[in-house]
Amino acid sequence: MKTLNEAFEHTLQDIYWAENALSKALPKVSKAVGNADLKAAFDDHLKETKGHIKTLEKVFKSLGKSASGEKCDAMDGLLKEADGLLEEAEGHALDVSVIGAAQAIEHYEIARYGTLREWAKELGHDEAHALLGTILDEEKAANAKLTALAVEAVNPKGKRKS
Amino acid sequence: MKTLNEAFEHTLQDIYWAENALSKALPKVSKAVGNADLKAAFDDHLKETKGHIKTLEKVFKSLGKSASGEKCDAMDGLLKEADGLLEEAEGHALDVSVIGAAQAIEHYEIARYGTLREWAKELGHDEAHALLGTILDEEKAANAKLTALAVEAVNPKGKRKS
Repeated sequence: MKTLNEAFEHTLQDIYWAENALSKALPKVSKAVGNADLKAAFDDHLKETKGHIKTLEKVFKSLGKSASGEKCDAMDGLLKEADGLLEEAEGHALDVSVIGAAQAIEHYEIARYGTLREWAKELGHDEAHALLGTILDEEKAANAKLTALAVEAVNPKGKRKS
Repeated sequence: MKTLNEAFEHTLQDIYWAENALSKALPKVSKAVGNADLKAAFDDHLKETKGHIKTLEKVFKSLGKSASGEKCDAMDGLLKEADGLLEEAEGHALDVSVIGAAQAIEHYEIARYGTLREWAKELGHDEAHALLGTILDEEKAANAKLTALAVEAVNPKGKRKS
């Protein structure tokens, strides 16, 4: 890998693998958490993640490539961390820890899509640039939703519904 | 792990391990990159990271605990990803990819310190709250520096010094 274009394609394959891995992990997380709002947020994010996979397939197509994934060690580690929490935590600690781990995953995705979008612009891949921008905006919105849930969940004296 | 306090201590041990792992990895990254500004940024960040380790030790002390780490799977994965780039990429692709990986690491740390700082506040750990806030601000500043370097490095027609 020597050029910006090669780095771009490599990172695209990485995030495609990462989104697929996330879509497989989310149902288990949703099942484990006790808070109803949190469960709904993870179910919504699963739908969004499946949408991101379809959008990434359009990005590959816009470059004249077939969608393909390459193992993303970072997402693998982030999901391993989340999986460990499902085993080690329960009750309130589980809910707040899982929100924290989900925010770490969102932040990772925001960093990667921010980089990919700017690389696409520099490379003149206009369609890819626009598509990656829409995913980036959704990841930022998902992180904002998690922050609101974190504030609510961290304080058990608040208005938690469950 | 059942309570917010247990989740807080667990995540503190995680990030202490993560900062120590990062401080061991940064010299290799600095040595590998070609861009002089980028090398200087990684050297500066190593100093900052060592400072964060000392600050985290003060956080542990403020809680009446000895500093101890627990393997952080997420940082392990993020560093494995960066290490893979050092092996697979060269030249321009190496510089831009390494900046991207470093931003992913910064975003991870920003997410974790943001969570830890808010948990400290909720738990009434005022000194820990203040100390974690100073690290969070430095991580945000480090990410902003990396963004500026990314913009400069991605465009080889720009004013790169090397």
